[in-house]
Amino acid sequence: MTPRISPERLLADIAALARIGGRADGGVDRLAGSRADLEGRRWLAERMGAAGLEANLDEVNNVFGHPPAVTGGLLLLGSHTDTVPAGGRLDGAYGVLAALEVARTLRESGHPAADRVAVASFHDEEGVSGKGFEGSLAFCAGPRMAGVIGYLELHIEQGPRLEAEGLELGAVEGIVGIERHRLEFRGEPNHAGTTPFEMRRDAGRASVRLLAGLRELVQLVDPEMVANAGEIAFHPGAPNVVPGLATTQVEFRALRPDSLARAAEALRFAAERIAGEERCELAIQPLTSWPAVALDPDFVAAVEVACVASGRPWRRLASGAGHDAEILARHVPAAMLFVPSRRGVSHSPLEDTDPEHLALGCQTLLEAALLALGEESS
Amino acid sequence: MTPRISPERLLADIAALARIGGRADGGVDRLAGSRADLEGRRWLAERMGAAGLEANLDEVNNVFGHPPAVTGGLLLLGSHTDTVPAGGRLDGAYGVLAALEVARTLRESGHPAADRVAVASFHDEEGVSGKGFEGSLAFCAGPRMAGVIGYLELHIEQGPRLEAEGLELGAVEGIVGIERHRLEFRGEPNHAGTTPFEMRRDAGRASVRLLAGLRELVQLVDPEMVANAGEIAFHPGAPNVVPGLATTQVEFRALRPDSLARAAEALRFAAERIAGEERCELAIQPLTSWPAVALDPDFVAAVEVACVASGRPWRRLASGAGHDAEILARHVPAAMLFVPSRRGVSHSPLEDTDPEHLALGCQTLLEAALLALGEESS
Repeated sequence: MTPRISPERLLADIAALARIGGRADGGVDRLAGSRADLEGRRWLAERMGAAGLEANLDEVNNVFGHPPAVTGGLLLLGSHTDTVPAGGRLDGAYGVLAALEVARTLRESGHPAADRVAVASFHDEEGVSGKGFEGSLAFCAGPRMAGVIGYLELHIEQGPRLEAEGLELGAVEGIVGIERHRLEFRGEPNHAGTTPFEMRRDAGRASVRLLAGLRELVQLVDPEMVANAGEIAFHPGAPNVVPGLATTQVEFRALRPDSLARAAEALRFAAERIAGEERCELAIQPLTSWPAVALDPDFVAAVEVACVASGRPWRRLASGAGHDAEILARHVPAAMLFVPSRRGVSHSPLEDTDPEHLALGCQTLLEAALLALGEESS
Repeated sequence: MTPRISPERLLADIAALARIGGRADGGVDRLAGSRADLEGRRWLAERMGAAGLEANLDEVNNVFGHPPAVTGGLLLLGSHTDTVPAGGRLDGAYGVLAALEVARTLRESGHPAADRVAVASFHDEEGVSGKGFEGSLAFCAGPRMAGVIGYLELHIEQGPRLEAEGLELGAVEGIVGIERHRLEFRGEPNHAGTTPFEMRRDAGRASVRLLAGLRELVQLVDPEMVANAGEIAFHPGAPNVVPGLATTQVEFRALRPDSLARAAEALRFAAERIAGEERCELAIQPLTSWPAVALDPDFVAAVEVACVASGRPWRRLASGAGHDAEILARHVPAAMLFVPSRRGVSHSPLEDTDPEHLALGCQTLLEAALLALGEESS
């Protein structure tokens, strides 16, 4: 019989860690490298030790707990315990504490897989002091990675899809790639009262015409991808002056690698057409770009089988946000499991997940780990 | 025979006044109340005196020059000699100096109308120290207004229409009314990677959809009116956050009084429809509102007859910008005459008009003044 995790112990651990750096509004401040973050990591190492793992903080403050006697390649389970400013108690922390609960449950039950499961909390996933993923990048470059044969990460969805569809688990097939582009339309600033429409070179109009069709544009390219225009400015920015310059940023996210390139091409095509019609000059500058990450088919299948075995409603989906798993996936087979986020809220003190779903995710992680290790539930 | 103005003398006056507060780039800084503005007004009063007018500065720094012996109701010709920061040498100054040239020409030729023409430069038309029109408002409230039976103002167009149509004169039938509205769409800020399109409440998308159709919306209401969206902002304003709040300002200008109200109604209708579709809340706040000013039909007709008599191409048009004439028109019959602005540029050191057009406008003002006074050209 498959060992059963303890929901009470898992929830107690989540509550205990949330008090370190806890805020009056229910949120958490454990910014990477802060006093609270380090206190949380030392507390975690102690909890790992109490569970029978050998645990310590490495030179970049990753917490790594491994079995005292390793009997084969290690399956690493983990996530991160740092938070964004005014973050929630589950983003990262849930995945780490569920990993600990899985390792603890296996050890307590004397399951042979116990000696092949390690637990990690990576440093600064959120990137408060850099680009993010500093800890997982350092871990993958270090000597301990040699013993690791795979990685599984449990995380809250941080989006509304599972909840909206009445689902309780998500098997993550990949992590979307991200591209950002800065667009600049340059026309001519003119008196808004004395310049008739047909004589304007209205950069503002050009930009809003493009953005008004952004959703339809990317949905034609790839119905699964998303886009966002989160910033816009008109210059000089006065009610009685036709904008001579408009700037905006467009972000694309897609799991299919070619979708990002095709969306960028479609954006340029539409922007050039509109710029021509509005007699504006156009400049498009590519900004940051992160490639999409496909997770390992066998590991994803292990997660899917565990989802099926749970008897609860689930789906396959892409992660729209970045995770440590995308760094690990460059080196070893990796997969992820999601549980629903209430109302899709994350990076907020209001971040929450039904306790039943937290327990379900943890038990499903255990099953997926056994499947990934090739251990039959017995 | 109608007296002929002196183009050389007019251009010399324009050049002389442009040196007071003149900038190295060819522009002018004579902000209302500044040392340069007052120096310009004293210079103007001297030039009026040399032309045989009695001239002085009143308590708000209006310059008023009138005939020593008035033989009937006075026709006032004027404009303003203050400028915006880094303004041009013609906006306002041209109308005042052309008025002086008309009065001077009539006196020199011994024309009987000479004793019925006065000249004014009003204080702070541009509104650098307030809402604008301070001088013309004070003049209209003062005792001198009692002797005034009408007002004519010559001005550069400050727009591109006359030049674009190959025209040299414009008879101004009215001054547009202006309404400004602040629009606020409130949705929900969300993670741009994890929130699918159909679950967003994207305030930015709602605002750009509205603004993309603004031109078409007002052209359906009144093909002669204009609109502008000169400002927009998304909040929180990050590339990876779906905007939860979008604010913008929309300005309408129309000569027909009901067009402003109908455009505001059409805007609200369109904004409510889009807000509903995007699941956003909408707030529309009326800001400033200035009513349209219809100029006096008989005075406009006098300007039109003078345009016809010039033998040069001309048209009737509305002024899209405000002028002192809209204040005077509340009290006495008033009309305006425009000459082309090169490339439509104004409020800029690059503001310019062909010298031939400057002379043509001045001569046409003289003819219109005689017609308005009921004097036959003889």
